[in-house]
Amino acid sequence: MDARPVDAAGQRRPAEEVYAYRRIADEITAWISDGTLQAGDRLPSVRRTCAQWSVSVPTVLQAYRLLEARRMVRARPRSGYFVLARPRRVEDEPRRSLPASAPARVTTGELIVRFLESVADGSLVPLGTALPDPALLPTARLARTLGAVARRDSVRSAMVWSPSGAEELRQQIAQRTVATRAPVTPGDVVVTAGCNEAIALGLRALTRPGDTVVVEAPAYYGTLQVIDALGLRALAVPADPREGIDVAALDAALRETEVAAAVVTPTVHNPLGSVMPEARRRELAAVLDAHGVPALEDDTYADLHFGPERPPSLRAFTRVAPVLVCGSFSKTLASAYRVGWIIPGRYHADVLRLKAATTVATPTPTQLAIAEFLRTGGYDHHVRRLKAALQANVERVTAQVAGRFPPGTRISAPAGGFLLWVELPEAVDALELYARCLGRGVSLAPGPVFSATGGNRNLIRLNGGLLWSPRVEQALNVIAHEAQALVRTTG
Amino acid sequence: MDARPVDAAGQRRPAEEVYAYRRIADEITAWISDGTLQAGDRLPSVRRTCAQWSVSVPTVLQAYRLLEARRMVRARPRSGYFVLARPRRVEDEPRRSLPASAPARVTTGELIVRFLESVADGSLVPLGTALPDPALLPTARLARTLGAVARRDSVRSAMVWSPSGAEELRQQIAQRTVATRAPVTPGDVVVTAGCNEAIALGLRALTRPGDTVVVEAPAYYGTLQVIDALGLRALAVPADPREGIDVAALDAALRETEVAAAVVTPTVHNPLGSVMPEARRRELAAVLDAHGVPALEDDTYADLHFGPERPPSLRAFTRVAPVLVCGSFSKTLASAYRVGWIIPGRYHADVLRLKAATTVATPTPTQLAIAEFLRTGGYDHHVRRLKAALQANVERVTAQVAGRFPPGTRISAPAGGFLLWVELPEAVDALELYARCLGRGVSLAPGPVFSATGGNRNLIRLNGGLLWSPRVEQALNVIAHEAQALVRTTG
Repeated sequence: MDARPVDAAGQRRPAEEVYAYRRIADEITAWISDGTLQAGDRLPSVRRTCAQWSVSVPTVLQAYRLLEARRMVRARPRSGYFVLARPRRVEDEPRRSLPASAPARVTTGELIVRFLESVADGSLVPLGTALPDPALLPTARLARTLGAVARRDSVRSAMVWSPSGAEELRQQIAQRTVATRAPVTPGDVVVTAGCNEAIALGLRALTRPGDTVVVEAPAYYGTLQVIDALGLRALAVPADPREGIDVAALDAALRETEVAAAVVTPTVHNPLGSVMPEARRRELAAVLDAHGVPALEDDTYADLHFGPERPPSLRAFTRVAPVLVCGSFSKTLASAYRVGWIIPGRYHADVLRLKAATTVATPTPTQLAIAEFLRTGGYDHHVRRLKAALQANVERVTAQVAGRFPPGTRISAPAGGFLLWVELPEAVDALELYARCLGRGVSLAPGPVFSATGGNRNLIRLNGGLLWSPRVEQALNVIAHEAQALVRTTG
Repeated sequence: MDARPVDAAGQRRPAEEVYAYRRIADEITAWISDGTLQAGDRLPSVRRTCAQWSVSVPTVLQAYRLLEARRMVRARPRSGYFVLARPRRVEDEPRRSLPASAPARVTTGELIVRFLESVADGSLVPLGTALPDPALLPTARLARTLGAVARRDSVRSAMVWSPSGAEELRQQIAQRTVATRAPVTPGDVVVTAGCNEAIALGLRALTRPGDTVVVEAPAYYGTLQVIDALGLRALAVPADPREGIDVAALDAALRETEVAAAVVTPTVHNPLGSVMPEARRRELAAVLDAHGVPALEDDTYADLHFGPERPPSLRAFTRVAPVLVCGSFSKTLASAYRVGWIIPGRYHADVLRLKAATTVATPTPTQLAIAEFLRTGGYDHHVRRLKAALQANVERVTAQVAGRFPPGTRISAPAGGFLLWVELPEAVDALELYARCLGRGVSLAPGPVFSATGGNRNLIRLNGGLLWSPRVEQALNVIAHEAQALVRTTG
């Protein structure tokens, strides 16, 4: 076997291990595909693979778990990992989308609203939402913290606010930007009502009605809603389930079309789960610089990347193009607290003015509670545990999809977060599947809500953040069953 | 003395007493002016005046306190009220403004932002803010309630939200609309981030960029900011310190100009303190109906009207013109909780769609805390006490202004809330006065921030909601001193 370390010197920065586990898994997948490894063969020991790739034990274990999730290998207690015999049903990750190449009004606004209304139904198994299981979050501790900070200074908590946000929270957010290689000061941060208000304020500052905005294909539906509400046009650029937005395609699009801004998600894309390699980030920054196009960097899921180190922000690489970074505590702490932020750079005054002219300020008590949680160190420990739980969960869901969904199904291998992007056979219409599953008590996110113009016809997003349970397993089987039925009916 | 009951049958609906105290005070003022009552004369006893006007004791006491605030009479313990000798310096309420009659872009946006930044400075005596003294608010009890509701259901508090808002809060808000004679159901209510988000969502639903919106002159600066941020034009219609918007002037303006919406404040206007009489409300509704112009009814201060009964909503009187009612708990409970609401009527779906595309939802814990406070009956009791305290405070500030400000100063006699609108002699430039007072540690709200185009040159708004203290008295003297100096310099 030809196991190559990544560079000649055998040196690898820990930050790169976030991608290494997938490269290792892909390499081994190739060995199995080309017959180098046969059914029943034992994989190289963890220690040996560590040495060959110059990576740490957790990275190799992550690679082997991914192969398990792909149903290519199986662990035998105290023996190692063995290649499975039968052909895999889930071959690959979803194919790259081919969106329309012209700017377009968002035609899926009504669909997105109906979708959001439907998934709000608490009686459904929420495989269509993008929220981790509350059991994985420190909700009780946060509630105690909220009560304590509100009582400690009840006058401030009830009557003092600022459009920028509470100073102690902005301090915590600013401190955490050091790891992104683009550190800012508390004065650079504006606290928002979740990442959505951040995106809305950023786009309002950067655009005027009628302008064109680049989005990824697929794109987060919240961004599409903002674009729709502001009377903007969306220009979709393909994004890869592994490498994020296609930088060459973006470059080509920017040569042809005048664009006011680009919304990009280099770190844990929703719904793809992609984390752009650092080289791609540098290329993206160069393209933005070359065209002078400002970017909104959506960092909503960034704290949930599975790698050992926080990937760098686009802001670390651009020279002239402004990058407005938007983040949130909705996925790691408390979505209903509605606390996010934007780092608007040179658009700081515009964003503050627009914030003052809409919500005035973010509520104080919830900000103080999250600041206290961050300050006392509970956050990092919590996020480490959360990521481990989510990763295990995602792999279980992947295995279930691989085992039960129709042949030809493809599923993403997310590098962070808890969302799975699933490509079904052409015969399956995602909206039809969605309607059928709602009728059976299960939600899912149909692909068209991630498109300005109704693309992703046969794709769905699944929430891999629900604690594994017979109810979740059964719900996945409902989706599998309905998808199989649609294949039989229309195939 | 010719004391006339209001109608022949001697019947008066309690709702009308909100205006009665001012009519009584005005009548007595007239008797003093025309010499019917002389310096040193005793006013009729409270009981006798009650009988003559067919009103309750509190209404007569309110009238007499207003006369005291106007420095026309003085109470002597156990003897009654006696007419004062010396000439009054504050003769009247401010004169009605004469705004530009054409639609105009908001040119005061930057000024308003600078003003809001300056008043946020906690070291100033906040006579420029529009917040009651925190000592008058149940901040500690609210903090305990917040902690209790968050702990009681920490999962819901952290992870469950809806764009419409928490059901129990919408129930409480809906229940309270019964008193406005335009009752709605909880399903009609959308909870917002304070009244500002309500106004912003309402105007976004009603307008497109470039449209013209009617505002009152003077207008709340937050509304002007929204109009500016949305690229709308403002058409200012004069408003009277006693009767609110000039309905005939509105009618004339609507005959000449196509208007997308009107923002009106029938109940406790900021900064005027006016409460439109019911007859004026009916006329206003008829004009809106005749021109088919939708209205945003700003109810921010409505719970703080001084009368015994909640004045009716415009919604009770319009037949075809939509009225979107916007309210808030910022002035009565906790401004930093950022909880308000809108009742959008037929624009319900549009408002929800726009809300989902900006803040997604209002945070859950602060909503639940306020709902619990309302549900357990603490609110009504609190508001009654708050209004009594505010009214006494407003009268003290009025007396101080009357005694110390330059001759020719006019001051409003608010029918609710805690804001005073003060017209200074022509020689005083409010922006110059504002700058001088900031330099001496005192804020005030200069008149031009209440105008789209920089009007109200010699007017200021004072916060009468601060607990009376030597510091507040001294701050008022600073303003008086600087105003006197400006009169001497430029007069």
